[in-house]
Amino acid sequence: MTTPQAGQGGWRTLFSLNAEAGPSLQVQIRTQLMAAIRSGILPPGARLASSRDLAEALGVSRNTVVLAFKHLIASQILEVRDRSGVQVAPGAAAKLAPGAAPDGQEAGAVDWTQKLALIPSRQRNIEKPWDWRRYRYPFIYGQSDPTLFPMADWRDCARTALSANEIEGWSGDLIDGDYAPLIEQLRLGVLPRRGVWARPDEIILTLGAQNALYMIASLLGGPGRTVAVENPGYPDARNIFALSGAQIVQMRPDAEGIDPAHAPRGPALLYLSPCQQCPTGAVMSEARRTRLLEEAERQDWIIIEDDYGSELLGETNAPAALKAEDRAGRVIYVGSLSKILAPGLRLGYIVAPAPLIKEFRALRRLMLRHPPSNNQHMTSLFLSLGYGEAHFVRYAATLQARALELKRALHKHLPGWKIGPGANASSLWVETERDLEVRKLAALAAQDGVLIEPGDIFFERAEDGARCIRFGLASISQDRIETGVQILAGCAGRLLHQTRTL
Amino acid sequence: MTTPQAGQGGWRTLFSLNAEAGPSLQVQIRTQLMAAIRSGILPPGARLASSRDLAEALGVSRNTVVLAFKHLIASQILEVRDRSGVQVAPGAAAKLAPGAAPDGQEAGAVDWTQKLALIPSRQRNIEKPWDWRRYRYPFIYGQSDPTLFPMADWRDCARTALSANEIEGWSGDLIDGDYAPLIEQLRLGVLPRRGVWARPDEIILTLGAQNALYMIASLLGGPGRTVAVENPGYPDARNIFALSGAQIVQMRPDAEGIDPAHAPRGPALLYLSPCQQCPTGAVMSEARRTRLLEEAERQDWIIIEDDYGSELLGETNAPAALKAEDRAGRVIYVGSLSKILAPGLRLGYIVAPAPLIKEFRALRRLMLRHPPSNNQHMTSLFLSLGYGEAHFVRYAATLQARALELKRALHKHLPGWKIGPGANASSLWVETERDLEVRKLAALAAQDGVLIEPGDIFFERAEDGARCIRFGLASISQDRIETGVQILAGCAGRLLHQTRTL
Repeated sequence: MTTPQAGQGGWRTLFSLNAEAGPSLQVQIRTQLMAAIRSGILPPGARLASSRDLAEALGVSRNTVVLAFKHLIASQILEVRDRSGVQVAPGAAAKLAPGAAPDGQEAGAVDWTQKLALIPSRQRNIEKPWDWRRYRYPFIYGQSDPTLFPMADWRDCARTALSANEIEGWSGDLIDGDYAPLIEQLRLGVLPRRGVWARPDEIILTLGAQNALYMIASLLGGPGRTVAVENPGYPDARNIFALSGAQIVQMRPDAEGIDPAHAPRGPALLYLSPCQQCPTGAVMSEARRTRLLEEAERQDWIIIEDDYGSELLGETNAPAALKAEDRAGRVIYVGSLSKILAPGLRLGYIVAPAPLIKEFRALRRLMLRHPPSNNQHMTSLFLSLGYGEAHFVRYAATLQARALELKRALHKHLPGWKIGPGANASSLWVETERDLEVRKLAALAAQDGVLIEPGDIFFERAEDGARCIRFGLASISQDRIETGVQILAGCAGRLLHQTRTL
Repeated sequence: MTTPQAGQGGWRTLFSLNAEAGPSLQVQIRTQLMAAIRSGILPPGARLASSRDLAEALGVSRNTVVLAFKHLIASQILEVRDRSGVQVAPGAAAKLAPGAAPDGQEAGAVDWTQKLALIPSRQRNIEKPWDWRRYRYPFIYGQSDPTLFPMADWRDCARTALSANEIEGWSGDLIDGDYAPLIEQLRLGVLPRRGVWARPDEIILTLGAQNALYMIASLLGGPGRTVAVENPGYPDARNIFALSGAQIVQMRPDAEGIDPAHAPRGPALLYLSPCQQCPTGAVMSEARRTRLLEEAERQDWIIIEDDYGSELLGETNAPAALKAEDRAGRVIYVGSLSKILAPGLRLGYIVAPAPLIKEFRALRRLMLRHPPSNNQHMTSLFLSLGYGEAHFVRYAATLQARALELKRALHKHLPGWKIGPGANASSLWVETERDLEVRKLAALAAQDGVLIEPGDIFFERAEDGARCIRFGLASISQDRIETGVQILAGCAGRLLHQTRTL
């Protein structure tokens, strides 16, 4: 066995030729190429090495390779393209294997489940169709219709970030640091609108709010700790804390959010969304906020405030963040820029006491170092040029109008359904009438182009939320809302009729 | 206590006014503003709310605020800017507090060390000066001099990624997915050059190689597991596996890399850099590669192959990756695009059996969802347009020339120093002569503009590497190498003289 070489020699490892035994080398090359195509390693359109390079890599005569190619071209497994040489033909894989592709588990392969310290794939998760944009009426959360994206302003910033000077600024490794001007934009522009004031050493950037929660769970969760979560609540947070090994306790929100009287006694982490409870939208009442902060000191609680979608709450009729009143340093604040700018950008932040931020920096250094610096630069430019504030205001107004339209349409076409307590900025929480199972309704509606999100995923026990729906508003344009609801009402009617006549 | 409001009302939470007791409201506002400036919450240049907005937020008369402002303007704590209103004056913070800023630990504050499940800041880490670009002779690793960045080609891709169509493509949340065309570029373009062939379900993108190691440690490390690492070896990997709670075992590389005979018997994770050992650059011999893969099946090892800087090994005189010969599915391959493109971009990948990739996807969904999709799109364009291959070849040639120049200069000016065994593509491992402590030398040389990296950080016990240096090559241009070495030789001479005459 000789070590295969890199570069074009890399082709050698696709093959396992035996000159001493078995069929001729030409046949071996042919069958092994076919196996690679069948298993999907070489997909339609994949370009092969030239016969010269391949012969050299395999240590066979060029003629042997040419012969193998000719056979496969004749049987339309390979094809010749003028300039790019020989490549895998479009229908090759289907031609070779009507059966299933191998699943990576070969004879004698490793039993990975036995090796895994965690099996995250077993958790229940929110699922959205990949191709949601192809549906005409997508009421899904966390995805934005592209017209909401501030295209021209972002382009302006992105182009500026491509100047030689800027590239020099963002190309390097920040190790455990952040781009200082973006931190300044957050602490003097974005956070004060939420009533939060912080020094630079009290803020760290994260790869979206999700990454913030993961880091918090890594540092403060784990076996032997108690984490209280909202039920219904954000399933990813529940999964993240559960994965850390902490004991999970459920708290039930009502129209005023979570009641601190129902939180566990004694030291615990409390994961809360006080300004717009996820998913119901309930706003925590003033009395409860006060009580919560008092009890936190008495019981030794650490409160994780998920202020998701907070930019939409920046107007003066919304309450400031709980963190704004945190005199004892017991609130860890999590915010995000991804949702409102572009979820694909993945930018979030944590505000917490400096000694804790120091540990988050050391942890993040190991976990991912830092959010990509080109995005930090572009976002900082975006905020500093005032595009952020203009965009937030526009975005909030658009979503408010959509929410009103959705409420109106629901009242009109589905008067029996109950709309949730709160003014959740980018989604609406709704309970259907008795007997109507949302999972069945969602499947039926999807066939007619209407996507809705079953709300059961927010509950610890799915059956508790069988009649709940979260309607996302960022994904659907206003003029399609009523028709979407009308179609949904039609589906609901058919389903109820079926159920009742069964 | 009433809940403070968001927006301009957010200013309320900066203050804690008491109309019933204490000094006048005007004085309270003044002293509390001064405290915020002293502690750094309001830095020089920070713009204040208008007196009208602030008065409204605080529920005081506008006159009260105007008076407080006037006082502070008179004492040059605040200043008036024509259009932007009142802001914090440049020298205000210094004027207010010659003493230290508060450290976030107030009376009755939380004792965070007692709350932490992990204390990552206590680990030993590589440290590089933030301002390395200001040094004339920076021999540091992991940072690139900007002339290496393919500025024009990247700009071309970045501009394309700003088309409306592309933005629509990357603005959405990928949840646990990756941008498929980039996966195709990796598996049909980048990986085959390393002899690695994989199906799409055997690859996942990570936020740089660091994030890949962190995910591997999270899934396969942890208490009760044994992880064998190279010593000297990559300190971040050692720290990541140690943080997971696994038992760490050391393996000593020689001129042929790690000897599998010295690896722990029985089930273990082996973290290795076989193609260019980090930091010595040793290449694992053919006999040891063969033995390693055989023993892996016998002992039930899982091998983590860190193929860092692999793009520089793409030419045919380098060995293919160990993964290329992995018939038993026991090698988890870690690669990176960050180093060669721009470390700030943070893009890496894992190649592993499909059942394991499925778990990595579920884990990454919770940890960070996905690397930012705009960067995935740009990088995919960059590779698909052929810029990648052209860039890799240019980059490799540049670094090889620098390595030769450095070797020449060391032979000439520091003939007593020993150059490491391997052909490490982007750094050189060097041992100084007896009596010369590298930490002292580095401090002295930095004063003369020469940055070198003490090699002791790569050793489990720092004292074992007191005479080792890693010279980074990506950070320094070729024409400065000899002068840098000359200055270093001068510093070494002075230091040795001091030591010997003491």
